[in-house]
Amino acid sequence: QVLARTNGHSYNNGQSNGNHRAPLIQIDHFGFLEDGTFKQRYLVNNEHWDQKGGPILFYTGNEGDITWFCNNTGFMWDVAEDLGAMLVFAEHRYYGESLPFGQDSYSDTKHLNYLTSEQALADFSVLIRELKRKVLGAQESPVIAIGGSYGGMLSAWLRMKYPNVVVGALAASAPIWQFPDMVPCGDFYKIVTQDFARSGLNCDINIRRSWKAIDNITATDDGLQWLSGEFSLCSPLKKTDLDGFKAWLQETWVNLAMVDYPYEANFLQPLPRWPIQVVCKHLSFDPSSVSDYQLLGGISEAARVYYNYTGNCPCLNTSSTATGNLGFIGWYYQACTEMVMPLCTDGVQDMFEPQDWNFQAFSDECNSLFGVRPRADWAATVYGGLDIASHSNIIFSNGGLDPWSSGGVTRNISDSVVAIVIPDGAHHLDLRYNNEYDPHTVLSARIQEVEYFKLWITQARKLQIPG
Amino acid sequence: QVLARTNGHSYNNGQSNGNHRAPLIQIDHFGFLEDGTFKQRYLVNNEHWDQKGGPILFYTGNEGDITWFCNNTGFMWDVAEDLGAMLVFAEHRYYGESLPFGQDSYSDTKHLNYLTSEQALADFSVLIRELKRKVLGAQESPVIAIGGSYGGMLSAWLRMKYPNVVVGALAASAPIWQFPDMVPCGDFYKIVTQDFARSGLNCDINIRRSWKAIDNITATDDGLQWLSGEFSLCSPLKKTDLDGFKAWLQETWVNLAMVDYPYEANFLQPLPRWPIQVVCKHLSFDPSSVSDYQLLGGISEAARVYYNYTGNCPCLNTSSTATGNLGFIGWYYQACTEMVMPLCTDGVQDMFEPQDWNFQAFSDECNSLFGVRPRADWAATVYGGLDIASHSNIIFSNGGLDPWSSGGVTRNISDSVVAIVIPDGAHHLDLRYNNEYDPHTVLSARIQEVEYFKLWITQARKLQIPG
Repeated sequence: QVLARTNGHSYNNGQSNGNHRAPLIQIDHFGFLEDGTFKQRYLVNNEHWDQKGGPILFYTGNEGDITWFCNNTGFMWDVAEDLGAMLVFAEHRYYGESLPFGQDSYSDTKHLNYLTSEQALADFSVLIRELKRKVLGAQESPVIAIGGSYGGMLSAWLRMKYPNVVVGALAASAPIWQFPDMVPCGDFYKIVTQDFARSGLNCDINIRRSWKAIDNITATDDGLQWLSGEFSLCSPLKKTDLDGFKAWLQETWVNLAMVDYPYEANFLQPLPRWPIQVVCKHLSFDPSSVSDYQLLGGISEAARVYYNYTGNCPCLNTSSTATGNLGFIGWYYQACTEMVMPLCTDGVQDMFEPQDWNFQAFSDECNSLFGVRPRADWAATVYGGLDIASHSNIIFSNGGLDPWSSGGVTRNISDSVVAIVIPDGAHHLDLRYNNEYDPHTVLSARIQEVEYFKLWITQARKLQIPG
Repeated sequence: QVLARTNGHSYNNGQSNGNHRAPLIQIDHFGFLEDGTFKQRYLVNNEHWDQKGGPILFYTGNEGDITWFCNNTGFMWDVAEDLGAMLVFAEHRYYGESLPFGQDSYSDTKHLNYLTSEQALADFSVLIRELKRKVLGAQESPVIAIGGSYGGMLSAWLRMKYPNVVVGALAASAPIWQFPDMVPCGDFYKIVTQDFARSGLNCDINIRRSWKAIDNITATDDGLQWLSGEFSLCSPLKKTDLDGFKAWLQETWVNLAMVDYPYEANFLQPLPRWPIQVVCKHLSFDPSSVSDYQLLGGISEAARVYYNYTGNCPCLNTSSTATGNLGFIGWYYQACTEMVMPLCTDGVQDMFEPQDWNFQAFSDECNSLFGVRPRADWAATVYGGLDIASHSNIIFSNGGLDPWSSGGVTRNISDSVVAIVIPDGAHHLDLRYNNEYDPHTVLSARIQEVEYFKLWITQARKLQIPG
């Protein structure tokens, strides 16, 4: 039975699909003392599926509600018919409705112990094997992993660690190298800055100047009050909020860089087409003559492009920068354990205040929040670091506008571990629905991706012929 | 400083080696709540090592004291000079001296929660990366994993899961397919039976008859007493011990099949050359005329070949069948969790009493012993099952006499996942020192293995050339 509709397409909720029951997934795949299980949510669409072994496109869910990713991964819906593919969107444990300890999953940090990428990969593998066993016609179906961002990392890693389960992976905007000692920590913010520099005259220069302007103006109580009013903040700024306010602005610019799509879209927020160009219209002051007040007035207009494009937002809330579909606490925990991704700024090659990567401070923060400490070297050990040449059938796609491309694989590693770069693309643009405003580079990326899919499917079918 | 000598070779104990300190290994690699560490023991020999990036042969320790495996893996010592290789023997967690919770490691089943193959593979990976970082000249050293039996499974899996850490693996007598639904459960005991059938006239037939003879004779108290005396048992048999007594005999025949080496050796026990031939000399009765007493007299002589070749054993102890260097409780726990290896007998194609594989009964036993239940399908999910074709640079060697070859890979899977079969070989004969009595098939196996090593080393060096 159809439980929901997404952009005109329907999908079944796998957990209550009459055709097959959701498997009970082990809470701990890597230890046997905790023998509890949980129900993993997954969504299925098979309207175009060739039931005689047609392929399965399997979305490896990331840190949020799976229906939201399902709605923002139009590429899979667009190519299903051509491939005769079943679509499966699997939710990542601890996000959305896939809570190993139900409502208590986040109530005690002890319960978070099983929130790791390794457990998630094992979940996906168990689920895929179970689907292939239980769904009539799927026994021989080649499965292709698809994901974006952290979900793209999971797709690549699923192919690396469980090549028996998926025949290949499309890892879109997956920063698998954004870990200690793999790429320079400053590249991420350099790309953000470039996006603003190319989107309007003086745009990056004015943002770079804005931090000092904030310091100047908030030196007085009147200034603080003025700034709160200028930004229509929901709660007026206090002196002690300044670091938080700057961090919120910085994250706003980062998010804009991630979703700088060529058409109106609603991923992290509802936004106009090429939103940074719209933002930069408010930031074209001549830097040699603009006053601090003028400058911050422009900044507030710019922020409103991001937070109030719909015009429905009565005040700006500095405690959040994006959609509620993402699981921030869960992701924070993952950053505090495995997902140690150094970022830094120098204020010269980027438009931000200089800040070194401080592992110890971060570790202390994690310890006080969750009682755990991040392990800086673990991701490199378990996922291969820069040395991934012995794997096969992985596409790494990256957008030139996307700051996360700093940690992405942007050159071919071998004949079958390949990179596709989309110069005009933001964060996993290739995974979105086809759009009339798409640059030709993303159209050609999607064509290449489907060609690789067909190659992998052919390879897999050949291997099945006995002898 | 040299801490010990083995067969005339010396090795350093890595933990206290002045050149490099043993890394502290996480007790739990896959969760962050348990942040404790332990010292993993490893042994190093670099007398032949080419310090300019010469390769490292890395023994992936199995379920026992690492010095014992070190002493029984002469192949590595024999080839070190030719390869200019450093030798490292790493002990598996929970065995020998590598106890995560020290003397308490086995005192509470809770402490056993981290005794898994996945944790062991992570240990090896962390250790290898640490050695390469810390040992002068090892930064670019290609590492080859070598192991036998369960250690061979770990070698293969290390290459599958951490190809960034090892360039290839020699998995000797590694039954990676001895898991549910991969190979017939009866093959193992068929091979044991064939070994006895080919080693002496009527040998398997008389063993097949012996079980009924035991039943007949132990029907009376006098018979029980006679049997205890005939076998010089340390504790006289009671009626309730009969199943245990038969299991002990069955395991004796299995162990003999494993160590049916062509020369005098001391692996599980000190034994003559071709020990099954010696055993079978006591079991050549004409089955149509032998009495139960005669037959069991022969069986007791046969058992003494295995248990008392040295003549120093005053009585036979049915509570143990092999060297104390193996960690039986630890291995039992592993069998009760991940290492679910179905074995069965039918009494027709093998010489044992018919016994089905009973997963439920085994699971209940595990639950009562350790409070855990085995997961029958997990090994297939995590280690790829029969579908290992996408991996590379793995040699699976198997001996035709070895019952564990039933679960081994005995045909080439691809150009670089290859099988070597040694028809006259018992359990990982190829890993032992060269011996004048070695059949030519094992000599040629060792030559092929070294050729593959050299190929992998060359490949790895080519990959390091920039561009």
